[in-house]
Amino acid sequence: MTTTATREAEVFVPGHITGFFSAHHTDDPATTGSRGAGLTITTGVKLEVCRGPTVSPGITLNGKSISIDAVDNVIDRLDIDDINVNAQTALPLGAGFGVSGAMTLGVAFGSNAVADKTNTRAESALITAAHCAEVRAGTGLGDVVAQARGGFPIRVEPGAPHVGQLDGITATPRVEYCSFGTVSTESVLNADTNTLTTAGEQALETLQSTPTAAQFMTLAHQFGVEAELMTPKAQEVIADVQTAGGTAAMAMLGNTVFALGNDLSAAGYDPVVCQTHSGGVSIQQQGNYQTGGQHNPRTIEHSS
Amino acid sequence: MTTTATREAEVFVPGHITGFFSAHHTDDPATTGSRGAGLTITTGVKLEVCRGPTVSPGITLNGKSISIDAVDNVIDRLDIDDINVNAQTALPLGAGFGVSGAMTLGVAFGSNAVADKTNTRAESALITAAHCAEVRAGTGLGDVVAQARGGFPIRVEPGAPHVGQLDGITATPRVEYCSFGTVSTESVLNADTNTLTTAGEQALETLQSTPTAAQFMTLAHQFGVEAELMTPKAQEVIADVQTAGGTAAMAMLGNTVFALGNDLSAAGYDPVVCQTHSGGVSIQQQGNYQTGGQHNPRTIEHSS
Repeated sequence: MTTTATREAEVFVPGHITGFFSAHHTDDPATTGSRGAGLTITTGVKLEVCRGPTVSPGITLNGKSISIDAVDNVIDRLDIDDINVNAQTALPLGAGFGVSGAMTLGVAFGSNAVADKTNTRAESALITAAHCAEVRAGTGLGDVVAQARGGFPIRVEPGAPHVGQLDGITATPRVEYCSFGTVSTESVLNADTNTLTTAGEQALETLQSTPTAAQFMTLAHQFGVEAELMTPKAQEVIADVQTAGGTAAMAMLGNTVFALGNDLSAAGYDPVVCQTHSGGVSIQQQGNYQTGGQHNPRTIEHSS
Repeated sequence: MTTTATREAEVFVPGHITGFFSAHHTDDPATTGSRGAGLTITTGVKLEVCRGPTVSPGITLNGKSISIDAVDNVIDRLDIDDINVNAQTALPLGAGFGVSGAMTLGVAFGSNAVADKTNTRAESALITAAHCAEVRAGTGLGDVVAQARGGFPIRVEPGAPHVGQLDGITATPRVEYCSFGTVSTESVLNADTNTLTTAGEQALETLQSTPTAAQFMTLAHQFGVEAELMTPKAQEVIADVQTAGGTAAMAMLGNTVFALGNDLSAAGYDPVVCQTHSGGVSIQQQGNYQTGGQHNPRTIEHSS
């Protein structure tokens, strides 16, 4: 009996909530990006990536076929055929959690893991490919590099790895969020970004001199006000949290309010609760299975 | 009743096994470091760091008082008084797992977490302080930056964050190791490093063109031979693994043999088993307790 090897990998990418940012556009997607700060969270996107003749190419998210420009773009850039992606997430789409960045980065890492050895890339090349794909699609400027790093990232200089520069806040707080719907990232990024960039630059300077979680929350809230990006619903919820003595801010960009500790629940809301994610994108498992044999995804190969 | 606040934090730092390296010395510890590649592992060092008038300053590792030059050095650099550190690890000392780097980095992160807010630093400043402290002490050149990053780090350019440059292999293999004792890192780093640096530079170039776990193992083994750093015991164990069809290498620098997958156990050894660690150093928890009240370390603060 002839068996045909099908390779598969499972990848996890944390969600990313941006608190404030400034947009920096150049002619090159690798040097285009954002400065700012955000939080990666334990709620993220889990992707099963397969490759082989037994599976038909296709991308699903939570069981439904989905088309994401940045994902198509990164598959083209990495030049890997027959990729099949089955992704699951508890995060809402378009609500400020970087789901498109997570999908793009996860597909880059997963595709690389199932590619032929001759086509294997190091992490920085995969992150660069995913970052450039998101920038070209106009759906994000800083999510990919933040999700690749994990933790509580400060985007000190914009752009892909070895071009941009990242730092981080050491704190790993509990995070609460309530999401009320979508805000179009494209429409904000394609509009005049001067006001938000001025506000974002000031916030970054202040955060760098006092890099604490409490300072981040104060600056994220201020940024939403100054950049005039707050939705009426976010304003209402943030006011409630303030009345209860807490601090909350709007996720950039989504109709989502987030807070640290228990500041949303203390104000009477019923938020989703998660934690700051300590690492970035990672391969969870990687294995071969034979179409004529038994599926054994738990065998961690060291051949790639 | 007057209560006095004592702050405490728990930090985890992964172990780090260097496979091959080249040494790069300059007049500045921030630009001094190593290029090369290694693996961070889930076996690491857990540190409880406290600060306050109720605890006496002191550093213990596995319950015993210990003095580590790089740790003293980083506490001085960060200028934080009254630090008490209680560290635990299953890793042997001086055996090539970066325990001194882990202690130094863990103390930097832990001290920062319990410091006054006005003295809070971002991650890159803490990693730089720990890296420079290790370089000055002569006990390591690349462990700190690798342990701060996590995963399967490639040290592309030497030095502290924003000076050096890191990349990574995407694989997250299971790791096995057997340790037979110590090798003095200082004595190797203080001797002529020309031979090892030539071998390490060649290995790095090859790994960058094929950044896979299998390639890393082959290069790590070759490096041990070419740099003439292998102990007789390591040579014997590596030969046994090769006879059984596997690949193993010596940890740089310790009398330790490591392998991926089950290559050591398949050769009849009874190794310690762990996994590649997906993240770098991280604060596990952080809290206040009142000397007049109840200890509640699970309260994650968002004030720092």
